[in-house]
Amino acid sequence: MPRASLRENLIAAAVEQFHTRGYAATGVKDITDAAGAPKGSFYNHFESKEALAVVALERYGDTRRLEALRDRSVAPLTRLREHFEFLRDENIQAGFNRGCLVGDLAVEVADHSDAVRATTHAGLQAWTDALAFAITDAQEAGDVARTLEASTLARFVLNAWEGALISARVDRSARAFESFLTVAFGVLLR
Amino acid sequence: MPRASLRENLIAAAVEQFHTRGYAATGVKDITDAAGAPKGSFYNHFESKEALAVVALERYGDTRRLEALRDRSVAPLTRLREHFEFLRDENIQAGFNRGCLVGDLAVEVADHSDAVRATTHAGLQAWTDALAFAITDAQEAGDVARTLEASTLARFVLNAWEGALISARVDRSARAFESFLTVAFGVLLR
Repeated sequence: MPRASLRENLIAAAVEQFHTRGYAATGVKDITDAAGAPKGSFYNHFESKEALAVVALERYGDTRRLEALRDRSVAPLTRLREHFEFLRDENIQAGFNRGCLVGDLAVEVADHSDAVRATTHAGLQAWTDALAFAITDAQEAGDVARTLEASTLARFVLNAWEGALISARVDRSARAFESFLTVAFGVLLR
Repeated sequence: MPRASLRENLIAAAVEQFHTRGYAATGVKDITDAAGAPKGSFYNHFESKEALAVVALERYGDTRRLEALRDRSVAPLTRLREHFEFLRDENIQAGFNRGCLVGDLAVEVADHSDAVRATTHAGLQAWTDALAFAITDAQEAGDVARTLEASTLARFVLNAWEGALISARVDRSARAFESFLTVAFGVLLR
């Protein structure tokens, strides 16, 4: 039976390698090398690079702190702001590289892999749902206008965030994050 | 001296191949094959795939109809709406594949190539400037509030568009474009 710890090391290495190099530019050997595993061990754990990408996306999704968006012990607009500040700080620490792994693989791979497309689709939907949960709470508290449906606002804000990551990456600056926070919390979420 | 028509064919093929397959997944031979050219001819015209990507991005930028955003014979909000409707229709016709070539190469390549990063940076800035031109006209006409700077609004809307392309791609639906138009023209640009 394959060792569980080796499987975990391969997943962690895949998250890191796909995020740093991109999907097509990452070979199976890059992943096994980064995991300190022999190349031949890969196929004991995963059928293909594509199958590993699906698991890597799920694992990455688990680190997005979506559960905090549903934490009713915190005021809804505070939850929303802290969510994007967490993502912003993470990106600044990475030197404005990498973007969001879900967005990265959606752009590079979704047209070519039904499995990756389905997983990125589910990832963005789960994220939208968590944002919509907090936005609904904010609307019920009277902090955000009810003019638009929470789910419409949530997906728009998420898309604006994914685009801000693209701008930050080509600018190598936090300017796009500042604009994002100014417009999202100054105009949309009020 | 290299033939100008072959150079043009290589550029057109590169725009198509990078947009369809992505950058890392496109080899020089894919480009020369698509251009109907012998592989050896490539380096008579371009130093590298990276050098061709820079030219391909500029050529793609020329097709974005940015000049229409500065056409003062059309009402400013009409210019802005027609711009995004043009981009939406183009994406629907492509079956929700491809996204925007500038966003695609920003995500996949900007971290790894200073030349591609500089070109995507300039492309997004030119696009922001053209949007800001129309937004400024709309603000002066009293159609859009002056609460935010036109350039801040322009970059935010552009980022939201780039993100909507990601959502449309994983959804294979125009839903994200509808949300984009609803929020952009119902809340931000008014």
